[in-house]
Amino acid sequence: MTDRSTDAAELVEVWRGDILESTHRGHAVICRADGEIVAEWGAPDAIIYPRSSCKMLQALPLVESGAADAAGLGVEELALSCASHQGALLHTERVADWLAGLGLGEGDLRCGTQFPRDKAEAERVRRTGEGACQLHNNCSGKHAGFLTLNRHLGGGAEYHEIDHPVQRAVKDAYEEMTGETSPGYGIDGCSAPNHASTLHGFARAMARMADPSGLGAVRRDAATRLVAAMRRFPLLVAGEGRACSEMMAAMPNATAIKTGAEAVFAAILPERKLGVALKIEDGTTRAAECAIAALLARLGVADAEHPLIASRLNPTQRNWNGIATGFVRPAPGLWAGGAAL
Amino acid sequence: MTDRSTDAAELVEVWRGDILESTHRGHAVICRADGEIVAEWGAPDAIIYPRSSCKMLQALPLVESGAADAAGLGVEELALSCASHQGALLHTERVADWLAGLGLGEGDLRCGTQFPRDKAEAERVRRTGEGACQLHNNCSGKHAGFLTLNRHLGGGAEYHEIDHPVQRAVKDAYEEMTGETSPGYGIDGCSAPNHASTLHGFARAMARMADPSGLGAVRRDAATRLVAAMRRFPLLVAGEGRACSEMMAAMPNATAIKTGAEAVFAAILPERKLGVALKIEDGTTRAAECAIAALLARLGVADAEHPLIASRLNPTQRNWNGIATGFVRPAPGLWAGGAAL
Repeated sequence: MTDRSTDAAELVEVWRGDILESTHRGHAVICRADGEIVAEWGAPDAIIYPRSSCKMLQALPLVESGAADAAGLGVEELALSCASHQGALLHTERVADWLAGLGLGEGDLRCGTQFPRDKAEAERVRRTGEGACQLHNNCSGKHAGFLTLNRHLGGGAEYHEIDHPVQRAVKDAYEEMTGETSPGYGIDGCSAPNHASTLHGFARAMARMADPSGLGAVRRDAATRLVAAMRRFPLLVAGEGRACSEMMAAMPNATAIKTGAEAVFAAILPERKLGVALKIEDGTTRAAECAIAALLARLGVADAEHPLIASRLNPTQRNWNGIATGFVRPAPGLWAGGAAL
Repeated sequence: MTDRSTDAAELVEVWRGDILESTHRGHAVICRADGEIVAEWGAPDAIIYPRSSCKMLQALPLVESGAADAAGLGVEELALSCASHQGALLHTERVADWLAGLGLGEGDLRCGTQFPRDKAEAERVRRTGEGACQLHNNCSGKHAGFLTLNRHLGGGAEYHEIDHPVQRAVKDAYEEMTGETSPGYGIDGCSAPNHASTLHGFARAMARMADPSGLGAVRRDAATRLVAAMRRFPLLVAGEGRACSEMMAAMPNATAIKTGAEAVFAAILPERKLGVALKIEDGTTRAAECAIAALLARLGVADAEHPLIASRLNPTQRNWNGIATGFVRPAPGLWAGGAAL
C-alpha cells in the first residue's frame, strides 16, 4: 500500500457570509514535455488515479494501431473516445451508430448501465419506460474505442480485463507517456483498469500531448488528432452545462481539458507547450473545477471574467430562495492575485 | 474574516484497489457538559457553522417559551422541528397539518421550495405534475417551529430575519448552550441565520443536551424532551435510507445524532453524558458519516458490525457493473483499531 501524503496545499475555499466554511486541499503541477516543472502546489510526487482525465491517453492505441482509420472513424468518434459524456441522445446515438458500423451492439459493451445525467434524456427514459442502457454510461465512447481496437487486435470479448491485449496496449501508452512504471491499478467506474502514476508523471503526459514534438511520428500524429478532436467537439466530450464542454467552448485557443472522478483535472496547452494536472485530495468536483479555472486564467488561456469560466472560478452559492449565501474561490496561494504563469 | 486553520487531522480515507485515492481531513471533539475535552482530533477551536446539526438547539426556544405546549404540539412535531427531512409524505403531511392547526399554510413558510429527496414523493410530484413546494424543504419542520414560536411571541411575518424576535431567541439559545459569543452568522440553505461557534463550543452544547443537569429547570426540560423526540421518531428526523435515521434506529440506547450541510455531524450521548461534534473541512458527507460512525462505535453506543453502522463506517464502493472497486474507512488516527473511548 502506498504512503499517504500529508503535504497537500490549500487550493480552494468555500465562504458563507464572512466566515470560511470549508477548505479543499490538493496537488497541482504545470510542466513541459521533458518534465520540467513550471509551477507546483502540494506534492508533485503524490500518487494519483487519473480516472477519466486520462481518456485521451487511453485512446492513443486506438489511433496509433490504425484501428480507428481501418474502422473509418471520424473526428466525432475520436472526441467520444476521450469523453465522459452525460448520456444525451447526442452521445448515445453516435455511439450506437459507431457500434453498428463494427457489426456490434450495446450488449458488447462492458461499461455497465448508468442512468443518463442529461436532463432531457433522463426525462425521455423515464417517460417512455425505455430504461437506461450501457450506451448511457459516461464511458461508452471510450469502450466503443476499446471494441474498435479489439476488432483490430483480434482479442476476446472481455476487452476490459487487465491482461487483455487492449488493456495491455492502454497500460503501455500510459506508462510511456507518463514516463513512469505504474505502481498499480484500480478498477474504474466502467470496469476498465485505471493505472496510477505520480501527479507529475500525469502532467508530463499532458505536456507531451500538448507538445508531441519529442514523440515518434505515429504517436505524434495520434496525439495531435485526439487533442484536435476534443477541441472541435467540446459538447461530445461531456455535454450541455458541463465544465469540460463549457470551458473549452469559452477558450479561444487550442487548450483541451478533461476532468476525472474524485476531483482530478487535466489540461493540454498546445500553444504554451504545457501540461497541467491537479488532484483535490478529498475528491470534490467543485474544487477541481475552481482550481483548473484558476490555473487556466493565470496561464492566460482562459478569461477569468468570461461567464463560463467565472462560474467555475468564483461561483456564487445560492439557497432555496435564490439568496446568495456565499461563494467558492481559489485559495490565496493558488490564485496569487491572478498573477500570470 | 476569520483565520483559516491549517491543523485539520486526517479522519477518513477512500481506497481504490491497493492505493489511497482520496483523503478527508477535519476536526472532532468529544466533551462533557462543563466543556472538559475527553478526546479531540484536529483543532477544537476551529470556527464552524453547525448548519442543520444544531436544529435541536434552534428548537429550544419553541419548547422553553411554552409555545409548543400552547399550540398542542406532540412528540412528532418536536422531532420534526429538529429534522432535516427528505420531503416524504410522512414529513410533508405532518408539517401541513401542523401549520393548519396554527391557522397557517405553506405560503407562510420562508424556507423556499426544495425538490423532495424522497424517491417515492419525487416520483409522485413528477407524475402528478403537482410540483414541489416549501413543505418539501428539508427544514420545513424547523420553520413550522419558528412559526409556532412566532405566534407565541407576536412577531411579524418575516420570522427568518436576523433581528426578528424568533431569531434573537434562537441566537441567545445557541450562545448560551455553546458558552460562546458567536463570531458571526451566515444565511443557511433555508434562509434562516446560522450562527458560528468553535467546534468545541458546539460539542459542549451537545454535551449539555446529553447532560442537562447543570441547566435551569425550563431548559433542562426542553432539552430532555427534544432529545427524546429525536430518538423516538428517527424517521421523522431525516427519512428512509438516511444516516441519521438508520443509525439512530440501529443504536439500542438514548444516543441522538444529527447531520448538517458541509459535513458537520453531532451526537448527544445521555448515558455517557457526552457531546460529540465533528466537521470535515472539505464538506463531504461520506466522510462525516464515516467519522461519526467511528466515534460512536469507539464510544460503545454503536455496533461497528451492525449493517446500518458498517455501511457508514466502512462502505464498499461499487461501480456500474456492481463490482467492488474500493472502500471508505476511518483513518488510522481516528479509528485507533477501534479502541474504546
